[in-house]
Amino acid sequence: MPAYKAPLHDIRFLMNEVLDYPAHYQTLSNGDIADADTIDMILEGAADFCENILSPLNQTGDAEGCHFENGEVKTPKGFKEAYDQFVQGGWQGLSFPEEFGGQNLPQSLNLIKSEMMGTANWSFQMYPGLSVGCINTILQYGTAEQKNTYLPKLVEGTWSGTMCLTEPQCGTDLGQVKSKAEPLADGSYAISGTKIFISAGEHDLTENIVHIVLARLPDAPAGTKGISLFIVPKFNVNADGSIGERNPVTCGSIEHKMGIRASATAVLNFDNAVGYLIGEPNKGLQAMFTFMNTARIGTAIQGIAHAELAFQGSLPYAKDRMSMRALSGKKDPDKVADAIIHHADVRRMLLTQKAIAEGGRSMIYYAAQLADKMSDALTRGDTAAFEAHDDHLGFYTPILKGFLTELGYEAANHGMQVYGGHGYIKEWGMEQIVRDSRISTLYEGTTGVQALDLIGRKVLLSSKGKVIRDYTAEILKFCGQQARNKYMRRFAWDLTKLCAQWNALTVRIMLAARKDRNIVSSASTDFLMFSGYVMMAYFWAQQAAVASAKLASGEGQETPEFYKAKIKVADFYFERMLPRTQGHAESMVNPSKTMTSLPVEHFSFDY
Amino acid sequence: MPAYKAPLHDIRFLMNEVLDYPAHYQTLSNGDIADADTIDMILEGAADFCENILSPLNQTGDAEGCHFENGEVKTPKGFKEAYDQFVQGGWQGLSFPEEFGGQNLPQSLNLIKSEMMGTANWSFQMYPGLSVGCINTILQYGTAEQKNTYLPKLVEGTWSGTMCLTEPQCGTDLGQVKSKAEPLADGSYAISGTKIFISAGEHDLTENIVHIVLARLPDAPAGTKGISLFIVPKFNVNADGSIGERNPVTCGSIEHKMGIRASATAVLNFDNAVGYLIGEPNKGLQAMFTFMNTARIGTAIQGIAHAELAFQGSLPYAKDRMSMRALSGKKDPDKVADAIIHHADVRRMLLTQKAIAEGGRSMIYYAAQLADKMSDALTRGDTAAFEAHDDHLGFYTPILKGFLTELGYEAANHGMQVYGGHGYIKEWGMEQIVRDSRISTLYEGTTGVQALDLIGRKVLLSSKGKVIRDYTAEILKFCGQQARNKYMRRFAWDLTKLCAQWNALTVRIMLAARKDRNIVSSASTDFLMFSGYVMMAYFWAQQAAVASAKLASGEGQETPEFYKAKIKVADFYFERMLPRTQGHAESMVNPSKTMTSLPVEHFSFDY
Repeated sequence: MPAYKAPLHDIRFLMNEVLDYPAHYQTLSNGDIADADTIDMILEGAADFCENILSPLNQTGDAEGCHFENGEVKTPKGFKEAYDQFVQGGWQGLSFPEEFGGQNLPQSLNLIKSEMMGTANWSFQMYPGLSVGCINTILQYGTAEQKNTYLPKLVEGTWSGTMCLTEPQCGTDLGQVKSKAEPLADGSYAISGTKIFISAGEHDLTENIVHIVLARLPDAPAGTKGISLFIVPKFNVNADGSIGERNPVTCGSIEHKMGIRASATAVLNFDNAVGYLIGEPNKGLQAMFTFMNTARIGTAIQGIAHAELAFQGSLPYAKDRMSMRALSGKKDPDKVADAIIHHADVRRMLLTQKAIAEGGRSMIYYAAQLADKMSDALTRGDTAAFEAHDDHLGFYTPILKGFLTELGYEAANHGMQVYGGHGYIKEWGMEQIVRDSRISTLYEGTTGVQALDLIGRKVLLSSKGKVIRDYTAEILKFCGQQARNKYMRRFAWDLTKLCAQWNALTVRIMLAARKDRNIVSSASTDFLMFSGYVMMAYFWAQQAAVASAKLASGEGQETPEFYKAKIKVADFYFERMLPRTQGHAESMVNPSKTMTSLPVEHFSFDY
Repeated sequence: MPAYKAPLHDIRFLMNEVLDYPAHYQTLSNGDIADADTIDMILEGAADFCENILSPLNQTGDAEGCHFENGEVKTPKGFKEAYDQFVQGGWQGLSFPEEFGGQNLPQSLNLIKSEMMGTANWSFQMYPGLSVGCINTILQYGTAEQKNTYLPKLVEGTWSGTMCLTEPQCGTDLGQVKSKAEPLADGSYAISGTKIFISAGEHDLTENIVHIVLARLPDAPAGTKGISLFIVPKFNVNADGSIGERNPVTCGSIEHKMGIRASATAVLNFDNAVGYLIGEPNKGLQAMFTFMNTARIGTAIQGIAHAELAFQGSLPYAKDRMSMRALSGKKDPDKVADAIIHHADVRRMLLTQKAIAEGGRSMIYYAAQLADKMSDALTRGDTAAFEAHDDHLGFYTPILKGFLTELGYEAANHGMQVYGGHGYIKEWGMEQIVRDSRISTLYEGTTGVQALDLIGRKVLLSSKGKVIRDYTAEILKFCGQQARNKYMRRFAWDLTKLCAQWNALTVRIMLAARKDRNIVSSASTDFLMFSGYVMMAYFWAQQAAVASAKLASGEGQETPEFYKAKIKVADFYFERMLPRTQGHAESMVNPSKTMTSLPVEHFSFDY
């Protein structure tokens, strides 16, 4: 397993030179505390914790997995000690309010910290990661009493949280939720039902676990309009804040999974567990949607995390492993063969990983600024601004979640492929990256769900294509600004053509959908992937623009070689990956009937 | 884990209606014994064995894995009993000469049997599968004594065989092989060295294991021209054919792998083990090449095997699982939601799997006919015919091995994706298919190695593009024949354009390679995938042509619905998968410098 090294050069390049985080932070009400020294301290502290504490537990955690016995879950060796260090370092509270013990730093710093933690050890990162949704829900919808009861411990990290949505019969289609909440005399509720796939649903890292549970009140309307939210703590909390009686929410089993084996995925049985209504009755699903965008960005990070780790694993191997001679002549003449990094096809796999990791990182870091703005608006009580930023982020979310996790999985597979047969052997750790990354296109809304959200809700329903027109206008403006830079001309030209094509495809599907409703679904994944490739191209062009400007001016924090490498990877992306758009474009415009007209019973004549 | 059901409708459609196996068999010297009744008996017997004996052991074998203790390997529960049944059924000898106990049936029937066995349980199929290479080597290069000593037991299946090529420092680049062979006084050799990744290298299924080992004689030339082949049995064989002393070839460990966990992958230590030279000294590698094409077709089968099994697993789930409503209106109005098979994007994943499984199967079954012809030429002692057919098959081999295993892995991932989060849970068995299939792009030559073999050796070096000109001429002839069939027009037109493009791309790369040697490598994988998609399109068009002719005539062994479904899947392939060619076409023609010019030390500035 590759030992994780935080890519601080790239992180700082993106934060300081491409996305101007310092100026961005100045616009936030809590931005003044995110000064250069604080940011450095956080980046280096997180890097140290991830490289030295979390990374060494990644492969051992996978090999050992979680243990389930008598309703209790034991995490792998070393996880509890690492989690204690995480708590002691104050890492959970980084971006939560000081009022509840947090450090009130911008959300983006928390996302960047999560990226490092998740790259070093995704399974570990799941435990504190799930708490975030729980904390945000209580912060936004909880009563003062609920906040005071739960938030200090959750923000400290000595308690953790979960989101209990999925049931055996439904995941995406939450209107089918059956769990029940019966009112009790004291104003609380008796919650009953079975929840599955609950990440961090049971474990030994914290003193208490606070579950946010979707359930139905008696006589609630059917479907999505009859779902309410409840806080159900594993241990009831006494009036003085101390841990009270065990609540009858028990772990029935944990799942045996392909990957992220050190992350406990629990089946939770609620058997008249005491719960507390949070937010308005029957409006639980809307409340969930408030943080869906940020939650999905959190999952999109998994794409770049695994691309980065796969690259870190395959690069040294490609430099060391000797096999055959390069086609253009011996590169290591004194050796028995050339290192495989000298074969162009191996470089293709390395550069694809690098392009995904660094291109994806810039997309995430941009979205993180929108998350900052949302959070800032919330703090200021500016609902209109919150919603505007949420809408803006809502366009990026399905693309980042859907596209980056698909590409992250591709990158993980390239990393393994560079190793040849050795990649298939557990010892090297490369196959674990593939297994761990495979979940990312499934949970928090599958790729298909993201694709339908993008084209159905965000592009067609909400905006009749305006969101694409606006976004391509932004790209074209950038292209205009770059027209005189000789390094940038080919990028600007390719982007200009693709913007026209993106709009044309949108209009074509919009018109076709009037008569062919299913085309929205049949075109969706192609449209998502097309959109993702163009968006990533724009972000690579931005990186190349900064790099070429720094090379021209001789300024910048990095060496000229760093900037030259950025331009070369951008070139690679435009020449070797961006052409994939054309297959998606050609496929998506076909009518849906080729997909929909085959009768269900004719998919097979043998079974 | 889906219970395997042999897709006999599709198998018979391809054999009888598309590829006219009956007529093909008439051209073979051993074709008369492959009459309709015999074929039926074999297909049904194999289906029965695979469905009832092998399939139930697939998931349990993965969960249990192989056990290694004190140099011995125990296969998972049930494997030994199943293997005994395999031997009793005479399945190993299906296509080997009667002289050594075989049934002398055409090779193609053995490949079809292997497909069924591999789909039901790929790990199991590895054990008898590896024997085939060993048997072929002894058949072709062994002395009469060697044949009589080893073949009867190997053909019976009571002994098994391996191919020992890979060493820790080399896999693809066999010129680096270090294992040594010292001549002994009695004419045998003392073999020493370490071989890794030896499939079926040690196990408890057979009485003896016959290793074919690559090693160097003293003073052998360096590199690939100094490698000889040796037979090294696990147990020496006494003059009367009985098992003798244990030979010092010992299993040091078995690998812990991502998948095919019930297949033992051994590290073998040869410590002055007694070996017998087979074939000419220093010509071992050429001898290996004799059967490389058939061995690679055997691995290409893995692509369709996993595509088939993933489809068999995801189809019933897509019919059962209820989630959301179809965009074009309720399909299951009485249910809480529609079955997910009614969502176009889910159908995209199902149809992609089906297109890969059935399109790939037709490609394999065609190649199997070439294997028959090779084998027939060998029997007749017609070396020229053998080489002509081997050359012909040599064009298909890298495409089938490289392209079909990549698409098989894609299909396995779609199968898992249809299950949503449940796909990630071991219980369902879908993630095992992904893990098992992942090896197929790595062993028997990675995809990159296949790609270089195709464009470098087969297209440019051996034929200066003629092989593409000839193949596209064949496709264009077919298109001409179909021009008047209204069902076929769009297929013929698309194929015609792609044939022109395929030739143009070949010429363009050939010309570019004069100045830019590395383009052969930088273009290789794109060229392989482009070639694969066009070839699969031709095979889908052939299936559609037969189906439309049968619909028109009202004849044929299948129902009209079967033929209509074939045309719909062909439509799907042309509209939704074939457009991917355009991304590959655009990417491959770019000069190699974008890939090759980044200095090795600038791939990262952090590690």
